[in-house]
Amino acid sequence: MKALVLLSGGLDSATCLAIAVKQYGAENVIALSVWYGQKHEKELQAARQIAAYYGVKWKTLDLALLFADSDCALLQGSDREIPKESYAEQLAETQGQTVSTYVPFRNGLFLASAASIALSNGCSVIYYGAHSDDAAGNAYPDCSIRFNQAMNEAIFTGSGEALRIQAPFVEQTKADVVRLGMELGVPYELTWSCYEGGEQPCGLCGTCRDRMAAFAANGWMDPLMKGRVK
Amino acid sequence: MKALVLLSGGLDSATCLAIAVKQYGAENVIALSVWYGQKHEKELQAARQIAAYYGVKWKTLDLALLFADSDCALLQGSDREIPKESYAEQLAETQGQTVSTYVPFRNGLFLASAASIALSNGCSVIYYGAHSDDAAGNAYPDCSIRFNQAMNEAIFTGSGEALRIQAPFVEQTKADVVRLGMELGVPYELTWSCYEGGEQPCGLCGTCRDRMAAFAANGWMDPLMKGRVK
Repeated sequence: MKALVLLSGGLDSATCLAIAVKQYGAENVIALSVWYGQKHEKELQAARQIAAYYGVKWKTLDLALLFADSDCALLQGSDREIPKESYAEQLAETQGQTVSTYVPFRNGLFLASAASIALSNGCSVIYYGAHSDDAAGNAYPDCSIRFNQAMNEAIFTGSGEALRIQAPFVEQTKADVVRLGMELGVPYELTWSCYEGGEQPCGLCGTCRDRMAAFAANGWMDPLMKGRVK
Repeated sequence: MKALVLLSGGLDSATCLAIAVKQYGAENVIALSVWYGQKHEKELQAARQIAAYYGVKWKTLDLALLFADSDCALLQGSDREIPKESYAEQLAETQGQTVSTYVPFRNGLFLASAASIALSNGCSVIYYGAHSDDAAGNAYPDCSIRFNQAMNEAIFTGSGEALRIQAPFVEQTKADVVRLGMELGVPYELTWSCYEGGEQPCGLCGTCRDRMAAFAANGWMDPLMKGRVK
């Protein structure tokens, strides 16, 4: 049995990859990273290093054209600034709508793309790292349990029951992910989560804040933040 | 309200476009055609002409790289020949598996791509032309009612309830589609369904057979077959 793992280069997907490698063996795992026109390439560089660390086949895919008309704050084509507030603060402003860093139907598109590639490569399962913190308050509705169930059903049915989704963290918090990842020895120093493309994580954007909090909840410090003034 | 229509250039999607234009007005409809590495470009040429006929904005998308590893008989990269039997005959050989012209999770991928583009362009509905004949016997499981329901739920949920699918023919036969299309005056002479890329439809592949039967069931002749020996 073979698995395909959606590997963004962030903390959650790196932990997913660790799980899949443990389950199926590195020789039976393909990591897929998608370029979608972000303002920087740090995540993709991180994904390449993580795939190399685990010795899995690494594929990349350029879907930037699909978001050419989007004004999502993460994308090169947008003038919107990346927010420097927590997701909770952003959601208070958006009044329950998606946040400005929501990329239109990104996870659905990535999972559908992964499905086409997985079926062509003999994989019977797709892993991805959606977790409950990202889904909270409708910030990223394509991380929710309900979305995951529907997308799994669509992929299972639409593939002639040849393929399914594994989203091991969909009911867990990011702190749970980090705890499991530390047990599995995930090389978090190789990952990149920050929405900005600086030399070091900005420590201020929504995903930086979530990431630091997830380490702190376990009594650890994010390895990317070591040596920096708190 | 704006609509995005997946327009392959075939009979079913052209009829979908006619419905959407009637419902929303041509100025509020975007037609999206996807190139996925087929052995010919006749469908795409047909799609362009149909979009021009209806005066709607036409977008194209190249997703061929996603099927680079597929051995589907429709694709340039495959040595498999396009079957010259009916779907029923093919299914008897495949014993309930998908047919060799099944493109891995194509409809799922096209709908997900359409969702990302629709959300970026202010559309709240995606039309596509799946019908029950294609889903029969698991030939194309990504045309089934069950798939459509799951994909609609995934897109509705994953978009923050901003977008949904309309699949007006999912419970209808191709003969039903043709009957409605003739009422709506769809220019079927502009459409292209044949899996081969010849000057005229081959009349032998699964989709040619289905198409001729759908016209015949209504007592009409396919305009593309006029003047040809029956």
